[in-house]
Order: sequence, then structure tokens, then C-alpha cells
Amino acid sequence: MIERLAVIGVGLIGGSLALALRAAGHVGEVIGCGRSRANLERALTLRVIDRIAEDPAAAARGADLVFVAVPLGAMRAVFQALRGQLAPETVLTDAGSVKGSVVEDVRAVFRAIPSCFLPGHPIAGTEHSGVEAAFPELYHNRRVILTPLPETAPNAIQRVSAMWQACGAEVDFMSVAQHDEVLAATSHLPHMLAFGLVDSLARMRENDEIFRYAAGGFRDFTRIASSNPEMWRDICLANREALSAVLARFSVELADLADSIRRADGERLFEIFSRAKAARDRYVDQARPMA
Amino acid sequence: MIERLAVIGVGLIGGSLALALRAAGHVGEVIGCGRSRANLERALTLRVIDRIAEDPAAAARGADLVFVAVPLGAMRAVFQALRGQLAPETVLTDAGSVKGSVVEDVRAVFRAIPSCFLPGHPIAGTEHSGVEAAFPELYHNRRVILTPLPETAPNAIQRVSAMWQACGAEVDFMSVAQHDEVLAATSHLPHMLAFGLVDSLARMRENDEIFRYAAGGFRDFTRIASSNPEMWRDICLANREALSAVLARFSVELADLADSIRRADGERLFEIFSRAKAARDRYVDQARPMA
Repeated sequence: MIERLAVIGVGLIGGSLALALRAAGHVGEVIGCGRSRANLERALTLRVIDRIAEDPAAAARGADLVFVAVPLGAMRAVFQALRGQLAPETVLTDAGSVKGSVVEDVRAVFRAIPSCFLPGHPIAGTEHSGVEAAFPELYHNRRVILTPLPETAPNAIQRVSAMWQACGAEVDFMSVAQHDEVLAATSHLPHMLAFGLVDSLARMRENDEIFRYAAGGFRDFTRIASSNPEMWRDICLANREALSAVLARFSVELADLADSIRRADGERLFEIFSRAKAARDRYVDQARPMA
Repeated sequence: MIERLAVIGVGLIGGSLALALRAAGHVGEVIGCGRSRANLERALTLRVIDRIAEDPAAAARGADLVFVAVPLGAMRAVFQALRGQLAPETVLTDAGSVKGSVVEDVRAVFRAIPSCFLPGHPIAGTEHSGVEAAFPELYHNRRVILTPLPETAPNAIQRVSAMWQACGAEVDFMSVAQHDEVLAATSHLPHMLAFGLVDSLARMRENDEIFRYAAGGFRDFTRIASSNPEMWRDICLANREALSAVLARFSVELADLADSIRRADGERLFEIFSRAKAARDRYVDQARPMA
């Protein structure tokens, strides 16, 4: 149970956490703070938060848990505002899609990693953003990856885990580096392909015609290209190294495919497509219990 | 109204046409023919077809419309079997995802394009195949592209258009070359990216772990990688030129993205992502009436 929760950044992620905890009876008061006053007023009207705080320090005052869900590029400024303002029992966690950069920000601002800090990442989201997109079931049956640091207190791990479990999520633990590599492959790279594909088609002369004939599969395939550009810019910058590595690996694969098509190498194409289909079908079977 | 329909290749596409025409009361008898006897027996049991024919010539006998829905690589053999077997009033059409190669096959087999022949392509499908995947609503509100040739008789255009409209589809006309370019961009290229991505991840050492953390967006994004490998090998070979051109264009886009990430060029990334999001959002608005 969290008596007072401070949500810094009341968008899809922060708003859905507040709604999920309320639905589970796992939270008392929710204090919201963020860049857009209009969004915060909306969050108040929607009863996602109980009160607006002027800045992160005011939000954190008296909170037993501070949840930071702002774009990665805004993290450091939030930590600066929180520095020296956290009570000894307050737990600090975040929802950043890249963990290495958040840990770096915390280290740069606080000098040493505070024992109250546990980096986290809920593997959930939609292509929509803002508090109006928030809903209490967002984390149902989703995975949340926590990446405890050597400095993290067992109490912080226990409280943050219990919070996510109350939202219906499954909690997993891994290292910061492992998280950033896995996410580069399974999330950041697919987003680059979707953004790149849609942009590439949008720049074709006949693009109205092109999009007109894009069938059902295309809609699913490109849904993630409707994601927030600011958030994705920040993710790319924050996970530059791991993302560059998987992009390079994918480029080799794509060159191989293009070459097989040019050479009309049907056997090679069949081999690639069959291996991909087998992996996709196996993955869907594996993932079914979570869906 | 089609008194007798011959379906060569009773899978998702051919089976769904038969079911849709039956549901619309637009067909009398349906004769099925195909490579797999077990699949045809299943089609009979499911009442997708009324009778099994031993070969395409037997299926076409007395049919007023012959619908060829076999993989592109099997088209030529079907046309060879049909040569000299079509009554003067019989209309011949197909569902191939590439039109240039089908026209080439018909020309090679029949020497001249028969006036009864109208190439077509329903922009519909799922990642499943076989007659068990067929359902009567597959073509509801979908586009069907017809690519009449100078030789095609007006009567064939009229009958094939009426057939697709009876299935609830919207009929569009374009040239063979235009069809193959539009489809390369909106369907064939996205399939290459999905197959390539899943294969690239499947080949990573930690692939079980990787797929375990692939979130909801990944499932949508890679759904088309579960498509039939044989069909897609044939599409790549048949649309080699147009597909190579869009692949080359996409590779330039991807290299630009990779370079912007390496250089940490946030402005450039934001520009690409914003343009893609705007195009995707506009496309979804445009497409809504069809969904």
C-alpha cells in the first residue's frame, strides 16, 4: 500500500499507473506534476490525480513513492529538482525505456546512487500519449523489468515490485545493460523500421495513391510509427550504442534479402522466410499465456 | 450470377471467394481443384465446394468463370492445363499478388492474351492459409485491383467486377506496372522487413530471452512474418524489379536513420519520426471508411 504517490509526468504511463493502483486499492493520495498545466487539469478532472504540485520537489514532499514517467530527455532535470528533497523512506523509481541513460542521469545529479532508487521499465504502451490515453488495465499481464543496482535497498525492491504486481503486471529482474540490449532488439529496432518505412513511402511522389492501397497488414505493421516523435528521439539518443548494434545486424540481414531477390535465389528466400515464420509462430505460442 | 464457378487452388483466397459468393447468392455450383487431395476433401466437408475436379481442365469444363488462386510459381502449370480447354464464354481471372508475372505466364502459354482473361488481385488476406482459414467476410470493404489488358473483353471486366462487388469488395482499375509498384511498396516491402526482423532476432544467441520480452507492438509488427514462405518466395521472384527498387530506397532511409543515431542528431531524428507519424495518422484517417 502506498499512502502518497507522486507521479512526475502524468501521461499514458504515469496516468495508467495511478488508475491501476486506485482500482487495486493500493494507493491513498496521488500527487501529479508535469510540464503541461492543461494536461494536469485534465488529469484532475479525470480523477487520475488528487492534487497538482507545482514542481517535482513539492510533489515528492511527504510521498512514500515517487514515480518518474517523463521522456528520457527530461529525466535529468527532474532528478535535479528532486535532489536533497527526498525523505529517507521515500522510494524513487522510473519508467524510462532505456535504463543506462537514467542511471547515468541519477549518478550525475546525486553523485552516488541513492539506496532508495530502483530503475524500472513497464513493457506496455500504446501509440497514444497524454493522460486521456491512460487506462487502469494497461499493465494487466504485462512484464515490468526492474534493474536493481548494487546500491539499491531491499526495501525499495520490495515496494516497487509490490506496486507493479498490484497493477496486474509480472515483475522480472535483469541488469541495466541486458535490459538495454533486449529492448533495442525487440522494441527500438522495430520502431525504427516502422518510422523508416512510413517516411520512405510518404516521400514517394505518388504517396496518396500508395497509402490508399495499403492493406490491413500494413496498418498493424505501421501502427508503432504513430508513436510520439519526441519520446522516440530521446530513446534513440539514450540507447545509441545498443540500437546501433542491432541496426547494423539488421542491415546485413536486409542486404542479404535484397541480394537474394536480385539473384532470384528462391531457395535462400524460402529458407529465410521459413525460419522467420517458425520463430514467429513459436514466439506467439510462448507468449500466449501472457496475452 | 455465376452458374458454375471453377476454383483452382482452394485455400484462404479461393475458399473465401466461394464462401462469399454463396453467402451473396451469386453462385450456383462450385468446382474445386488443387494440389492437396486432403485440402479438397476438407473443402468438400466444409461445403466450400460442391465437387472435386481431378485437374484444371476438368474443373473448367462447363464453368462460366475460372478463378485461379494458386501460388505465383504454380500459375504457369495451371494455364498450361487450361490451354485449349476454355469454352468461348468462359471468363478467366486470378488472384496473384503480382500481375506482371501472371500476364507473362498467360502470354507464354496461350501465345496471345485471350480476350476472356482479366488479371486481378484482392487486397485481402491473413497470415493463415489453407481452406480452413477461409471465411465469407474476407473481402468485405476490401479493395480488389483489376488490371485489364488491351485484349480483355468488356464482358470479362463486367463479370469479374460484379463478382467482387457481390463479395462486398470495392473494385479499382490500374495498369499492371502500376499495380506491381504500389504493391511492392505497401505489401511486399513490409513483409521483407517483418521476415528480416524476426529472422535477425531468431539468429541471436539469446533469442528465447529476446522473444520473451517482445511486447504487444512487436506482435502486431511481426504478424505478417507468419505468412506462407512458399507464397512469399514466389512473390519476391515474380516482382523482383519493383521490389528491388523499393528495397534500395528503404535501405537509404535506414542508413540515414542509423547515421543520425550514431551522430546523436536529435533534430534529424525528430524530423523523420514526426513526418512518419503525420503520414501514418493521415493514412489512418483516410482509410477509416474502408476499415
